[in-house]
Amino acid sequence: MTVSYNLDVSSASIFSFLRLQLRWNGSIWKYLLKELIFFVSAFFVVSFIYRSELFIAPETRKIWDNFAALFDQTMEFIPLTFMLGFFVTIIVRRWNDIFANLGWVDNTALTVANYIRGTDERTRMIRRNVIRYMVLTQVLVFRDISLQVRRRFPTLESIVAAGFMLEHEKEAFYNVPLKYSKYFLPIQWSSGLLFEARSEGKIAADLLMNEIGKHIIEFRKGLALLSNYDWVPIPLAYPQVVFLAVRSYFVMALIARQSVLLDGKPPEQASLLYHFVPFLMSILQFIFVVGWMKVAESMINPLGEDDDDFECNFLLDRNLAVGLAIVDDCYNQIPAIEKDMFWC
Amino acid sequence: MTVSYNLDVSSASIFSFLRLQLRWNGSIWKYLLKELIFFVSAFFVVSFIYRSELFIAPETRKIWDNFAALFDQTMEFIPLTFMLGFFVTIIVRRWNDIFANLGWVDNTALTVANYIRGTDERTRMIRRNVIRYMVLTQVLVFRDISLQVRRRFPTLESIVAAGFMLEHEKEAFYNVPLKYSKYFLPIQWSSGLLFEARSEGKIAADLLMNEIGKHIIEFRKGLALLSNYDWVPIPLAYPQVVFLAVRSYFVMALIARQSVLLDGKPPEQASLLYHFVPFLMSILQFIFVVGWMKVAESMINPLGEDDDDFECNFLLDRNLAVGLAIVDDCYNQIPAIEKDMFWC
Amino acid sequence: MTVSYNLDVSSASIFSFLRLQLRWNGSIWKYLLKELIFFVSAFFVVSFIYRSELFIAPETRKIWDNFAALFDQTMEFIPLTFMLGFFVTIIVRRWNDIFANLGWVDNTALTVANYIRGTDERTRMIRRNVIRYMVLTQVLVFRDISLQVRRRFPTLESIVAAGFMLEHEKEAFYNVPLKYSKYFLPIQWSSGLLFEARSEGKIAADLLMNEIGKHIIEFRKGLALLSNYDWVPIPLAYPQVVFLAVRSYFVMALIARQSVLLDGKPPEQASLLYHFVPFLMSILQFIFVVGWMKVAESMINPLGEDDDDFECNFLLDRNLAVGLAIVDDCYNQIPAIEKDMFWC
Amino acid sequence: MTVSYNLDVSSASIFSFLRLQLRWNGSIWKYLLKELIFFVSAFFVVSFIYRSELFIAPETRKIWDNFAALFDQTMEFIPLTFMLGFFVTIIVRRWNDIFANLGWVDNTALTVANYIRGTDERTRMIRRNVIRYMVLTQVLVFRDISLQVRRRFPTLESIVAAGFMLEHEKEAFYNVPLKYSKYFLPIQWSSGLLFEARSEGKIAADLLMNEIGKHIIEFRKGLALLSNYDWVPIPLAYPQVVFLAVRSYFVMALIARQSVLLDGKPPEQASLLYHFVPFLMSILQFIFVVGWMKVAESMINPLGEDDDDFECNFLLDRNLAVGLAIVDDCYNQIPAIEKDMFWC
Amino acid sequence: MTVSYNLDVSSASIFSFLRLQLRWNGSIWKYLLKELIFFVSAFFVVSFIYRSELFIAPETRKIWDNFAALFDQTMEFIPLTFMLGFFVTIIVRRWNDIFANLGWVDNTALTVANYIRGTDERTRMIRRNVIRYMVLTQVLVFRDISLQVRRRFPTLESIVAAGFMLEHEKEAFYNVPLKYSKYFLPIQWSSGLLFEARSEGKIAADLLMNEIGKHIIEFRKGLALLSNYDWVPIPLAYPQVVFLAVRSYFVMALIARQSVLLDGKPPEQASLLYHFVPFLMSILQFIFVVGWMKVAESMINPLGEDDDDFECNFLLDRNLAVGLAIVDDCYNQIPAIEKDMFWC
Repeated sequence: MTVSYNLDVSSASIFSFLRLQLRWNGSIWKYLLKELIFFVSAFFVVSFIYRSELFIAPETRKIWDNFAALFDQTMEFIPLTFMLGFFVTIIVRRWNDIFANLGWVDNTALTVANYIRGTDERTRMIRRNVIRYMVLTQVLVFRDISLQVRRRFPTLESIVAAGFMLEHEKEAFYNVPLKYSKYFLPIQWSSGLLFEARSEGKIAADLLMNEIGKHIIEFRKGLALLSNYDWVPIPLAYPQVVFLAVRSYFVMALIARQSVLLDGKPPEQASLLYHFVPFLMSILQFIFVVGWMKVAESMINPLGEDDDDFECNFLLDRNLAVGLAIVDDCYNQIPAIEKDMFWC
Repeated sequence: MTVSYNLDVSSASIFSFLRLQLRWNGSIWKYLLKELIFFVSAFFVVSFIYRSELFIAPETRKIWDNFAALFDQTMEFIPLTFMLGFFVTIIVRRWNDIFANLGWVDNTALTVANYIRGTDERTRMIRRNVIRYMVLTQVLVFRDISLQVRRRFPTLESIVAAGFMLEHEKEAFYNVPLKYSKYFLPIQWSSGLLFEARSEGKIAADLLMNEIGKHIIEFRKGLALLSNYDWVPIPLAYPQVVFLAVRSYFVMALIARQSVLLDGKPPEQASLLYHFVPFLMSILQFIFVVGWMKVAESMINPLGEDDDDFECNFLLDRNLAVGLAIVDDCYNQIPAIEKDMFWC
Repeated sequence: MTVSYNLDVSSASIFSFLRLQLRWNGSIWKYLLKELIFFVSAFFVVSFIYRSELFIAPETRKIWDNFAALFDQTMEFIPLTFMLGFFVTIIVRRWNDIFANLGWVDNTALTVANYIRGTDERTRMIRRNVIRYMVLTQVLVFRDISLQVRRRFPTLESIVAAGFMLEHEKEAFYNVPLKYSKYFLPIQWSSGLLFEARSEGKIAADLLMNEIGKHIIEFRKGLALLSNYDWVPIPLAYPQVVFLAVRSYFVMALIARQSVLLDGKPPEQASLLYHFVPFLMSILQFIFVVGWMKVAESMINPLGEDDDDFECNFLLDRNLAVGLAIVDDCYNQIPAIEKDMFWC
Repeated sequence: MTVSYNLDVSSASIFSFLRLQLRWNGSIWKYLLKELIFFVSAFFVVSFIYRSELFIAPETRKIWDNFAALFDQTMEFIPLTFMLGFFVTIIVRRWNDIFANLGWVDNTALTVANYIRGTDERTRMIRRNVIRYMVLTQVLVFRDISLQVRRRFPTLESIVAAGFMLEHEKEAFYNVPLKYSKYFLPIQWSSGLLFEARSEGKIAADLLMNEIGKHIIEFRKGLALLSNYDWVPIPLAYPQVVFLAVRSYFVMALIARQSVLLDGKPPEQASLLYHFVPFLMSILQFIFVVGWMKVAESMINPLGEDDDDFECNFLLDRNLAVGLAIVDDCYNQIPAIEKDMFWC
Repeated sequence: MTVSYNLDVSSASIFSFLRLQLRWNGSIWKYLLKELIFFVSAFFVVSFIYRSELFIAPETRKIWDNFAALFDQTMEFIPLTFMLGFFVTIIVRRWNDIFANLGWVDNTALTVANYIRGTDERTRMIRRNVIRYMVLTQVLVFRDISLQVRRRFPTLESIVAAGFMLEHEKEAFYNVPLKYSKYFLPIQWSSGLLFEARSEGKIAADLLMNEIGKHIIEFRKGLALLSNYDWVPIPLAYPQVVFLAVRSYFVMALIARQSVLLDGKPPEQASLLYHFVPFLMSILQFIFVVGWMKVAESMINPLGEDDDDFECNFLLDRNLAVGLAIVDDCYNQIPAIEKDMFWC
């Protein structure tokens, strides 16, 4: 389910900021909740150990303080924000590419409706099948790259049941012996139908047939790109390094942020309140840095199951319904040609 | 309303800098005013509490100072500028994409005017309707993604009233039963008219009809992209993290920037003037950082209602007027072919 | 006037560095000169005030020193380089887009010369006019977005005088009543001439006419993009924030960089020479940071009047001359077909 | 072998993080293992020298400490993360380009199957050869740019043996005397076959022949780009600088990170535990920084032999098998045209 | 001469690192050698002055130390790495664009060979000349933008001598009176030949002629882009600022890095070894930062004469030879059509 919030930010005011923060679905709060609770709890546990006389003698606490100071001095060795910044930029670019190639049948459907002429049953079936085969290809590709769709269509039978495929088409699909994926097959049926329609004179010219063919190929290219992106993700080592860096940083923070030190020494005027500052700042840093990382984690596989991931199943249903509406229900339904209001 | 300032920066001089700063509409001053006043007021209130003997005893103030020093030491945990820098870059790219796909009918109109020949009423109506249907699609899409346009056209009736749609077209629109958005319908009418014109011989060849069709599809693609960008914004968590980071930073600054400390200690020579420095620098930092963030906030939804947002309503009116002028008023109005000045 | 320096950097040696630095036109020195002189003068004035016993007593100087130290400590609040880095990147991308769409008629002219056949006067006039109308559109667009061109062509009459437009074309232009800009008109004439040529048999096929038409549309698209970029600049607030940040930084530097402090204290061994260091470093910082900003300022409106800005007037003249040469003077002037040196 | 991990990151949870870290192939652990062991061993050896009384007298150790402090102070001179960040971004862009141009025959095959009609042996051979020649070009190009493929096909004979080329084609290939690479030859055969098929009437129109030709050219362009990227890599000096910077940084870290210093002095409370901090942090820094660099190293030549590199041999086999299946086995095998489930 | 090193980095191992560092041509070592020797010598000279009792009394040395400390404190004012990072990114993008548009005739040649039919001398001459004229354009453009090519072809006569142009073509070229560059002329001849071939029936259809024409225009566009990039480089001020910043930084480093200071004071335990640290680190910083800058310097004019620059002359020869081979020697040389190994 994608999360839309454009109306909340239609102007850049303080209220739009608040409205934005109070969303739940897809929000940073939802992503962070579990880990934040875990981090805060761990912080309190370590704090308790650090401050309780039961566990730690005052001298030991001094050692801990030095320990913390050492950590603090060296934690900047981990180039957190830099790695995240560059990594997120790369992830966002990839996310954009995937989004731009999800595949919409509208262009093909409009061309099919306009160029394959006829209202007899056979012509209507041809038009409908051209579109249905395209959506079927999309179903087949999405099954292999999106968990949502895989769950909905665990087998070819379930695709038949949902009406994206007919029984005899399933047979034809099974009958092609090939050890590689057969995404191309429904697309080939689709273009084959064009040739059929052309030889029966339903399409008036080669040029027009070719134009529809181009749209189909365009659609296929988008799906091929999705499929290739799934085949070759960003090298595993990159997210591993980044995600590990973030997590190990905060594990060390649990130890390093217990002591209250000003330039390496405890402040002169003792006050319990001081302990609040490293705690608060660690929590905030956790929210911002881990939150930033969560953005990357949720975008790295946009066809997955996060709140923000693309709604693949919706897209499939929509493509079939709108495609069929265009090529069949709305075929040749132009309103009467009349003068418009500005005629003179 | 977009804000143009190119003439102010036609050369890189100090005056162009001043002219640029003195603009009001769309300026950083206008965006910041409210929050800046709020921040300054809050700063003064906290300053008063901090310095008045009524509220705080000198020892307490020492504690506050330590508190402030602790905050100062840890506020760099929040990677403000880094997050903003990368975020703004991503937002700007998206803003550019949206801007490049707003949709202009000129190319289609020019092709229509050149390829659909005839001066009889029916031909003129066809030419005009092809264009009007395209702008109508734009109206329908913009209504769903831009508050400005939604406000102008709350209902289909208001679109009819404005002349973008005729009464019987509205009926036809309502009569298509489909639970998905029907943006495609006027586009389909538009392409259908091309086929009509072709069969009546008003277009001389399939190739020419196809060429106009391509322009219409191109136009539709742009609108589809706008619509998709509205459907799938940048994952909510990203702006949340960034905007929250900025705001919480300045809340803490209110406390941390009250004390005047040089390397953690008050300066030796007391002077009230000192208090001016952290105040001034905090204000400046607020202006630059929050200002930078405002740039992002105002660009994140470029079809919204900020000063800088695209003028969608202007675009719709312009598209219809210019489109009709091209396909009708200026149809076949080529000046007499004469020798130019450089003829020899 | 664009500034070319490629020969100076044909190899990466120390001499190429020196040659590069010694250029004047379009150089950082020319851009910076005035402001640098101003900054240095201001620095000396403030230095004089700071060091002269007349104005400031030694105790006051101590306060100033603390003041300076405070500033120094907080001046990093202004994320100068970060903002500049990201801003310049965005500006450069836009500058590139504008540059890539300035509009060259060569492709159209070559196609026109090859596809509109005939050496009679009328055919020649048609070919010439197609090109002239394209350049005329460019003139009209450039007038509205470039000060250079506006200054050269303050009125339509001046365009007629320069030969880009004929008198009766100007009338035709005036006669179209439309409150929006009429850039499309000469382009429409241009495509109209294609249709004319086609019906008179000067173009052999619809396909060829359509091909020329595509080139014209391509040219128009580039100009439309320029015009849109002028209509919707980068949101005003962005350059405002960046330019203001840079300038206010250096105003504060005037005060903060007077004192010579090592870790907040004056160095033990007094020497007047010390004062040279903060001065020199401030000057260098000014040159680099303000210089970097000047790059952005000069690129933000590449059609303006800086040394580096695109030479729009040159482009217009060149386009007309080369375009006419291609379609007329060089029409059908193929050298005799002979065997080349490698024939065997 | 590419490494796929999309299912592991289908949602942004803590488990997906762990699953990601536990992968071995293509993982940061596999890339780093050897160097990490080497670095840790070297660290221990230097530690032993530093701490053992045998080698170093206490006064000498003080000198070492100062030495380390000096190094620590100056190691930030090496702009490690900055260089890596920008370098990785450039490498990733190039990697993306290469990936997008690997070359898939599907589009051409679909067009060939639809536009070259006939089921006689000659027509089938033509269709099959068009595809095979395309894959053959790919084999020839990949041999010169990918070690994997070169190893599989050390000679033209081995290509013949694998069935990508026939004996008499190999002769024809050898017979063309040209000192430049002859990648173009099989592509030329491929397009030549189109002309053949057209003149024999197997392709119905020039337009359709031209369409197939365009797909072949498109395929060739991708391969040409790969070949050019191999010819002109990113200037050698860039990876040299970056990789050397990273490595020399960690050589110095071996010396600098032995001493335990808090603000340049040993901590007051002695504890052997302290030594653990600089050790741990150096290891972590090594993992993250060298790991980041390894990402770049493994992406700089994506056709090489790392775990993450593209599986060129798989692609060649797949292209031939799928291509032949499309143009021959599945030629004209459209399922019977029937009514779909949503027919009404 | 481009420098290829892909085989050295086919896997990401420690050996690939060493192999990479040991290259000489195009390496960072070759670029840096002179300046590095100069910098080291200068460092030693200044060191000698600093440490010798002859020149400087101990008190003066103290002043120098303070001086150095002051410099050290302020040298971070120069945002070296930031400027370099962003600058290099921009340069690399431009370098990529230039590289992608160098111009290869293969696509045109393949289309020419397939669409212009005939084996008589005249047809062969036409095919050969179409290609030769394209390469001739490339020669003319490269002469004006690449020193290598300019040196090879100082005059049109030398082009004739090399066989890219015939004597009577040179005359024709001279005879066109135009004060702008005449790059378009050979391209126009080239397209003119297409029309010739079409009217003589050597090309079967307008569509096919048009297709070749499109490839020629595509080729021309690439060359026009190169030529425009040469006309409008990145604004001079940008490289000036960046290169100056780097160089002035290291001039100051000569003074600032002589003193051995730990937190502003000399280390307690004297040792001559200490001097080694600032020396080594300055050298390393010089290598990395100046090396990074050299990458930019060598890429800023990729048609220049650095080791890494594109081999323009090779490309010209290759284009002519391969182009002629395709359109003439290999014309219609399709191997006999036989069954492949996988036939069944």
